[in-house]
Parts: sequence; C-alpha cells; structure tokens
Amino acid sequence: MPVSSEAFRAAMARLGAAVNIVTTDGPAGRQGCTASAVCSVTDSPPTLLVCLNRSSDSNAAIKCNGVLCVNVLAHHHDMLSSVFAGLLGHEDPAERFAHGRWETLATGAPVLADAAVVFDARGVQVTEVGTHTVFFAEIEAIRTDPKAGALFWFDRSYHRLPVA
Amino acid sequence: MPVSSEAFRAAMARLGAAVNIVTTDGPAGRQGCTASAVCSVTDSPPTLLVCLNRSSDSNAAIKCNGVLCVNVLAHHHDMLSSVFAGLLGHEDPAERFAHGRWETLATGAPVLADAAVVFDARGVQVTEVGTHTVFFAEIEAIRTDPKAGALFWFDRSYHRLPVA
Repeated sequence: MPVSSEAFRAAMARLGAAVNIVTTDGPAGRQGCTASAVCSVTDSPPTLLVCLNRSSDSNAAIKCNGVLCVNVLAHHHDMLSSVFAGLLGHEDPAERFAHGRWETLATGAPVLADAAVVFDARGVQVTEVGTHTVFFAEIEAIRTDPKAGALFWFDRSYHRLPVA
Repeated sequence: MPVSSEAFRAAMARLGAAVNIVTTDGPAGRQGCTASAVCSVTDSPPTLLVCLNRSSDSNAAIKCNGVLCVNVLAHHHDMLSSVFAGLLGHEDPAERFAHGRWETLATGAPVLADAAVVFDARGVQVTEVGTHTVFFAEIEAIRTDPKAGALFWFDRSYHRLPVA
C-alpha cells in the first residue's frame, strides 16, 4: 500500500529542522517565505539547497532574480516566521517586510539584521521534483551572530536551542 | 572575496539539523552512514532528499542498490550516530551494524528498530553537485515511534528535543 500524503506529513513533522526565511530581490521584485527544507550540499564551492513549492511567489521570483538569501532564525523570531509563512494573512511582500529590519549584503537579496546566520547566495542550478523546486545556490557572503541561539520546528511547534 | 570552505562550515554549524542514519542494502551490499543533510521535498508523491559525499561507500552502494532508508535518531542514539559517522573507527559496515538492532520494512534497507521515525524509500532521481550527490527518494514505508524525542546536531554538539 503506498504511503499517503497525510502519513508522510505526520512523519515529517518528527524530522525537526531549523527555521529560515528565504528571500530574493531583483527584476521580479522582493519576495520572501519561511522554509525549513534547507541544507548544506558541499563546501567546495560553498553551496546549499532550498526546496520550495512551485506555486509560491518566492519560487517564481528566485528563478527570475537568480539570487536568494537564507536567513536562519534566532530564538525571538517565531512571530516573524509566522508572518513569512503567511499564517497571519500577510500575502503581499511589502506587508511581510514591514516586520523585521532588512538590509542587503552581496547579492541584493534581503538580509535580516538580527538573524542567527545569513547565507547570501546566487542560484546556480534548479531541479524540479513534482510540486517542488530544489534550488542549488552558491554562497557569496555569510554573516553570523555568535551569540544567537536557534529556532527549530519540530513536532508541529517551535523549540529553542542555545549556543555554547 | 569568495567565501572560504572553513567560513562556510563554521556558519553551517549554526544551521542545526536532525541526525539520521541513512542505510541501504542490495546487490552492492549493506552500508550506512550518519547524515544531517536530509529534508522533505514533496508530499505528492511522498519524497525526500538525502545529500551524501560522492567519496562515501554509502553513496556508491545507494546508486547500485536503488534503495535507502532514513532512520531519524532518538535521544539515546548519540553513540550510534558517532559509530555511523566513522568517528569511533568503524569503517567496515559489519562493524557498524553490530551496534543497534536492525530490521527491514519494504525495500530491504536496514531499519533501526528504535528510531524516532523511519522513511524506507526507493531512489528515483540523482543530481550531482560538486563533491556531493543529492538522492531524491520516494517513500514506500514509514514507521514512527510516537513517544521518541529527537536528537539534533547544532553548534557542533548534540541536543535533544522532546515530543509534546
């Protein structure tokens, strides 16, 4: 018997992950959304991947803009995470970016001023898998807040882990 | 100035992740290794991705066997994680699988009896990115321990999160 989407999502809720806001800016305009499907690919050259639904505005914008920034969220960003997940009714990017303080680094993609870590990156490769796109992005700039703890999404709720 | 591998790895240490043992079995034999670069791709059909170094024995074996199982580790699996990361000198798969209790589900890939969650899957697509391979795998069976908390790797140490 094949595994149902519901059973898959329930099991995936138990595979916890850091919470990130993935942003972009450029010819297609500024967009951003909350994403947990982000991971390291290789350190030579420094590359990560981001997996986003093909129907999202951020997906289309990243494809056009060719840049993205992964903003790894800190302890106090649970509300900001909900805003960029569209859970509070913020659909318009201008409404979303009214929350948080945003800057830029190398690529022009929005960088969250008090993120735990930011990976400012240029899209180099795209793989379509069913409903989702996997973006492989090469890092052009990094900024880390050495004191910021991490926000995690696990078992359908937020959790916090401290740095040493 | 490009981002160095060292700076990238230091920043990636702050993007925490669940700890998993990815296993395979088949014509190329049984292999397994610890991996944190695992995430959900789409729920239709239920698919995840696993990113593994191309030089690892598990990578070659998964390509040949065509199946893999993601065993999401629970609180007490820190030592098992180290065994399958090769940190304790266990290079031979027989040595590694002597630790933990292993079964099978749908694909024949080794399933850890007391894992928090297992995703037993068949490889459907492979993308090579520099030193690493991204395996896209379609889920054939799932098993979840509803009481098991999660083991995380963050800031270069293990952390534990409880279920509700």
